[in-house]
Amino acid sequence: MPFFDFESVPEVEYIPGWRGRAVHSERMTFMRWHIAAGQRLPVHSHPHEQVAHLISGEFDLTIDGETRRIHSGCVAVIPPQAVHSGIAITDCVFTDSFAPVRDDYLRVGNP
Amino acid sequence: MPFFDFESVPEVEYIPGWRGRAVHSERMTFMRWHIAAGQRLPVHSHPHEQVAHLISGEFDLTIDGETRRIHSGCVAVIPPQAVHSGIAITDCVFTDSFAPVRDDYLRVGNP
Repeated sequence: MPFFDFESVPEVEYIPGWRGRAVHSERMTFMRWHIAAGQRLPVHSHPHEQVAHLISGEFDLTIDGETRRIHSGCVAVIPPQAVHSGIAITDCVFTDSFAPVRDDYLRVGNP
Repeated sequence: MPFFDFESVPEVEYIPGWRGRAVHSERMTFMRWHIAAGQRLPVHSHPHEQVAHLISGEFDLTIDGETRRIHSGCVAVIPPQAVHSGIAITDCVFTDSFAPVRDDYLRVGNP
């Protein structure tokens, strides 16, 4: 079934305090997050390449020690194993594309 | 440089009548399209897996013979080589994640 409505995808706490919705394909995991102002993304890294796209809001994102305040329409490429963290300046909606599939999230969200 | 603002990315006609903006990473191509109501996506296929995310609007998307009217918040997974086509019912904004990188688009958009 190739079609999904994010509203019908269970919202899961993948990162402490971070609830998102995930669609897993063969090669990628695609996620949408609604994050409240002030919420911090803890310092972390993973072997998956990540492309983040901020749909609305403002977010301070740090990748490998470089911090930028990103806004609606901004894209950030997080290379495999890059250390990243951040904080939501306002309420934010954003998506993440991961390659390969977040097998660690598969275990969390899809029993 | 891991940060991009789509407004600063050149808009390129990747498909006849379809103008979009592309960010290429190591493993993926991430694109944003603004499509006018009535615009048709011609029948085509490619070896890249594709995850489409409709941010706003309504779009009739056909994948391997199955058509759905998708709306804001919908995601469609288009497997490698799947034949797909469509038509914008209203003005639409959507993103595509491709894996691997759209090397054919690299040649178009980044001389």
